[in-house]
Amino acid sequence: MPATDARIAAVDTYDIRFPTSRELDGSDAMNPDPDYSAAYVVLRADGPAEPAGHGFAFTIGRGNDVQVAAIHALRHHVLGRSVADLCADPGALYRDLTSDSQLRWLGPEKGVMHMAIGAVVNAVWDLAARRAGKPLWRLLADAEPEWLTTQIDFRYLTDALTPDEALDLLRRGRKGAAERTGDLLATGYPAYTTSPGWLGYDDTKLARLAAGAVADGFRQIKLKVGADLDDDVRRCRVARAAVGPDVRLALDANQRWDVPEAIRWTNALAEFDPYWIEEPTSPDDVLGHAAVRRAVAPVKVATGEHAHNRVVFKQLLQAGAVDIVQIDAARVGGVNENLAILLLAAKYGVPVCPHAGGVGLCELVQHLAMFDYVALSGTTEDRVVEYVDHLHDHFLDPVVIREGHYAAPTAPGFSAALRPESIARYTYPGGAFWAADAERTEGRTA
Amino acid sequence: MPATDARIAAVDTYDIRFPTSRELDGSDAMNPDPDYSAAYVVLRADGPAEPAGHGFAFTIGRGNDVQVAAIHALRHHVLGRSVADLCADPGALYRDLTSDSQLRWLGPEKGVMHMAIGAVVNAVWDLAARRAGKPLWRLLADAEPEWLTTQIDFRYLTDALTPDEALDLLRRGRKGAAERTGDLLATGYPAYTTSPGWLGYDDTKLARLAAGAVADGFRQIKLKVGADLDDDVRRCRVARAAVGPDVRLALDANQRWDVPEAIRWTNALAEFDPYWIEEPTSPDDVLGHAAVRRAVAPVKVATGEHAHNRVVFKQLLQAGAVDIVQIDAARVGGVNENLAILLLAAKYGVPVCPHAGGVGLCELVQHLAMFDYVALSGTTEDRVVEYVDHLHDHFLDPVVIREGHYAAPTAPGFSAALRPESIARYTYPGGAFWAADAERTEGRTA
Repeated sequence: MPATDARIAAVDTYDIRFPTSRELDGSDAMNPDPDYSAAYVVLRADGPAEPAGHGFAFTIGRGNDVQVAAIHALRHHVLGRSVADLCADPGALYRDLTSDSQLRWLGPEKGVMHMAIGAVVNAVWDLAARRAGKPLWRLLADAEPEWLTTQIDFRYLTDALTPDEALDLLRRGRKGAAERTGDLLATGYPAYTTSPGWLGYDDTKLARLAAGAVADGFRQIKLKVGADLDDDVRRCRVARAAVGPDVRLALDANQRWDVPEAIRWTNALAEFDPYWIEEPTSPDDVLGHAAVRRAVAPVKVATGEHAHNRVVFKQLLQAGAVDIVQIDAARVGGVNENLAILLLAAKYGVPVCPHAGGVGLCELVQHLAMFDYVALSGTTEDRVVEYVDHLHDHFLDPVVIREGHYAAPTAPGFSAALRPESIARYTYPGGAFWAADAERTEGRTA
Repeated sequence: MPATDARIAAVDTYDIRFPTSRELDGSDAMNPDPDYSAAYVVLRADGPAEPAGHGFAFTIGRGNDVQVAAIHALRHHVLGRSVADLCADPGALYRDLTSDSQLRWLGPEKGVMHMAIGAVVNAVWDLAARRAGKPLWRLLADAEPEWLTTQIDFRYLTDALTPDEALDLLRRGRKGAAERTGDLLATGYPAYTTSPGWLGYDDTKLARLAAGAVADGFRQIKLKVGADLDDDVRRCRVARAAVGPDVRLALDANQRWDVPEAIRWTNALAEFDPYWIEEPTSPDDVLGHAAVRRAVAPVKVATGEHAHNRVVFKQLLQAGAVDIVQIDAARVGGVNENLAILLLAAKYGVPVCPHAGGVGLCELVQHLAMFDYVALSGTTEDRVVEYVDHLHDHFLDPVVIREGHYAAPTAPGFSAALRPESIARYTYPGGAFWAADAERTEGRTA
C-alpha cells in the first residue's frame, strides 16, 4: 500500500442511464418499465500515483438526478481528506456522513440521502482495495476481527448485537478461512438466475430460458409474480416443468400484496413447491412479514433489497420475520452497514442470499457474499447470490459466471468502475445515446 | 367553488433557509445547529381567478437543495392537470405520485422522495381549501365520510384497518361535530410548548421560560434530554420546580439512545414525574419502542415525527409500542397519508399529539388535529399540539395562541403560504439575507 500524503481533490458525479425499458428485461409487478441507472461517483486524489475510487447508487430512471444531487451534497465531508486516513478507517467517514446533523433530517438513514452515503462509502472501499492490491472480498477476509469491529456502527443495535458478540463471531469466522479461500478460488460462489422469470416474457420464452438456466448449471431460478394469479399459476407450472423437481424455484412479488393477500396468493402457488416468496408486502412491514412467514411455511420468506438500514434488518431477525436475508450493496450505507447486517444474520443463524441485478449490483455484492463465506458464516449451504445477465459489459471488471457460480474476482478493488466509453455514451441527458434519442424523438414529433 | 377549466401551468420551487443556527433556539441532542428551512412549492393555475396552492417540506439546512430537486422531479405529474379535478380528488394525485414506478425505487415511500410527495400533495389541499373558501380543518370536517375514505391508500393497511372500518370510524366521528366546531371556535385546541426546554439554554433561562409558559396558560411543557444524564437530572429538577406538580413535563431524546440506554436513562428521570419520553431510540425501531414502553411505564412513550409512512405507524400500534402518536404534517405523503394515520390511531384508541415547530409545521398540523377533534376522535382529552414560537411572522396566516390553545384558523387554505418578502429575503443562496451573509463572510476571510 503506497505511503502518501495525497488528499481527495475531486468528488465527480455522473447521471448515467441505460435505456432498458425499451425491451421487457427487468419488468415485474411493481416496476413495469425500468431504465436501469447509476448515480455514479468517482473520488479522485491529488497524487498522480493514486487510483480513483468508484461507487454508485442504483436507481431505475427518473429521479437519478435527485440521487446525484444527494451525493453532491456530501462532498464537503470528503474533499481534502487524507487518502491514507480514509482507507485506513472508512468507518470514520461513514459515521461522519450518517451523523451530519442537518442532512440526517432528510432520512434519517433511509431513502435518497442514505443511498448517497452508501455510494460514497463504497467508493472509499473501492479505493482502499485498489491501494491494497486486493479484491474487496479478500481485503475484508484478511482484515483483523478487531479492526473490522471498529468499522461497524453499533448505534441502535446493542439490544441484538454487542461489539463483543461481533468480535466473537468474526474470530470464529476466521477458522478455516484459508481452506475456504482456496475452495472459493477453485469453485466460485453459488448463483441463482432471475433472467428466465420476468413478467414480460411469454411462456415459450420462460420455458426455454428456465431449461437453459439448468443446463448452464444453475440450481435455482426465480420468477416474478403478483400481477395476476391465474397467470402466475400457469407460469409456475411451465417453470416447474422446465426445471424438474430438484431445482429450486423462488418467487418474487416485489411488494405487491397486503398481508392477507400475500398469504392467500403464496398458498395458492404452494403446489409448485416454491423455495421462497420474496418481498411479499411492504419492505417496511416487519410484523407483516412475520405474519406471512407463519402462514406460508414451509415456503420461506425472503426480503431485504429495500430494507433501508440495519435497524430494519435487526427487527426482521428479532421478530422471526425472515428465513432469508437479502442484502443489497447499494441500498444501505455501504460496506460498513452491510458488515453489520451480515453479523446480525450470523448471530441469528439466518442465511444471507444477496439481491443483485440492475446496474452493477452483481459486481458489488459478490464481494460481500464471498467475505461472508470465507470469514464469517463459513458456509455456502442454502446460500446463493442473485444473478441477472444485464449490462455487465459496461464494467471494467465484470462478473464472471461459470457453471452456475460467481467466479471469485481477483482484480484489486470493488469491481465498481464503469468503462469510460459507457459513461460518455449513457450520461443523461448529454451523452451520445441520449442526445441521439432526443433528436429521434424530436424528429418523430416535428 | 369556482367552476373552471383551469389547469396547473407552473410548479415553482424555492430553496428557503432561515439562519436559526446563529442563535441556540432549536438545539437538541441530535440537532445542535439547525438552519430551519423549507423546500417550498407553489402550484399556479393558468386561470387568472384561480388561487395558488402552497406546500413545503421542512428541513434543517444542508440538503434543502436535494429536497427541492425531489419536488422538481414530480412536476410532470402535476403540470397540465385540471385544477377542478385535482381539488375534487387529491387522493388520485397522491396515488400517482407514490406509484411512479421509477421514482418509487428512491424510497419507497420514505425519505427525500416521500417528503417531496407530501409537499406537493399538501399544496393541492391548500389549493382545494382556498377554492372552497374554508380553512382545511373545516373542509375535512365537513367532507362526507364516503369521500374521505376514497382519499386513503389502504395498501399495506388492511391487516389493521379496512375501508369499511375507516368508514365506520368517520361516520361515528361525525356525531356531535357541530357542537365541537363551536367549542373549537370558542376555545381553540390545547397546545404545549417546547420553547423553554432547548438544550442550549442555561438553568436560569429554563426556569424563567418554564414559569412563563405556565403563566401563559400552557398545561404541558417539554424538555430536550439525552446529551448528559447529570445535566438532565438537574434541568428536570429546575423545570419541575418552576412549573409545579400539576403541569405535565414531557421529555424528548431525539433518537439519542439505544434500547437499553433509553430504559436506564428514562427510569433515572422518573422521580420528576415525566409525562412522556419522546423518540427514545431510532424512529425505525418498532420493536425497540415496544421494549422501552414495557420497561418505563407509567412514563408514556411518544414517537412519530420521523416515522416515514403509514406502515410504520401501523406497526407501532399493532406492537403496542406507543402511548402517543406524533404525526408530522410534512414528513409523510401529505394530508391523505395523515388521514390514514389518524384513522389507525382512532382504531387502536391511541391519542394523537402532533409534532410541530420548525418552519410552518405548527401552521399545517393544527388543521389535522382540529379535524381529528371535530370529526374523528371527538375529544381533546390527553391531546395537545406542540407549539414552538419560531418564524411564524414569515407566514401570511400565522398560528394564533391564546391561553395555551391554538385558535382555530378561519382563513381559507392550509395556512401554508409564506410572505413574498420572506421568500425573497431568505431564498438560498441568492436572497438578500444570504447574499449579504456571503459578502460578510468574504470580508472576514479576505
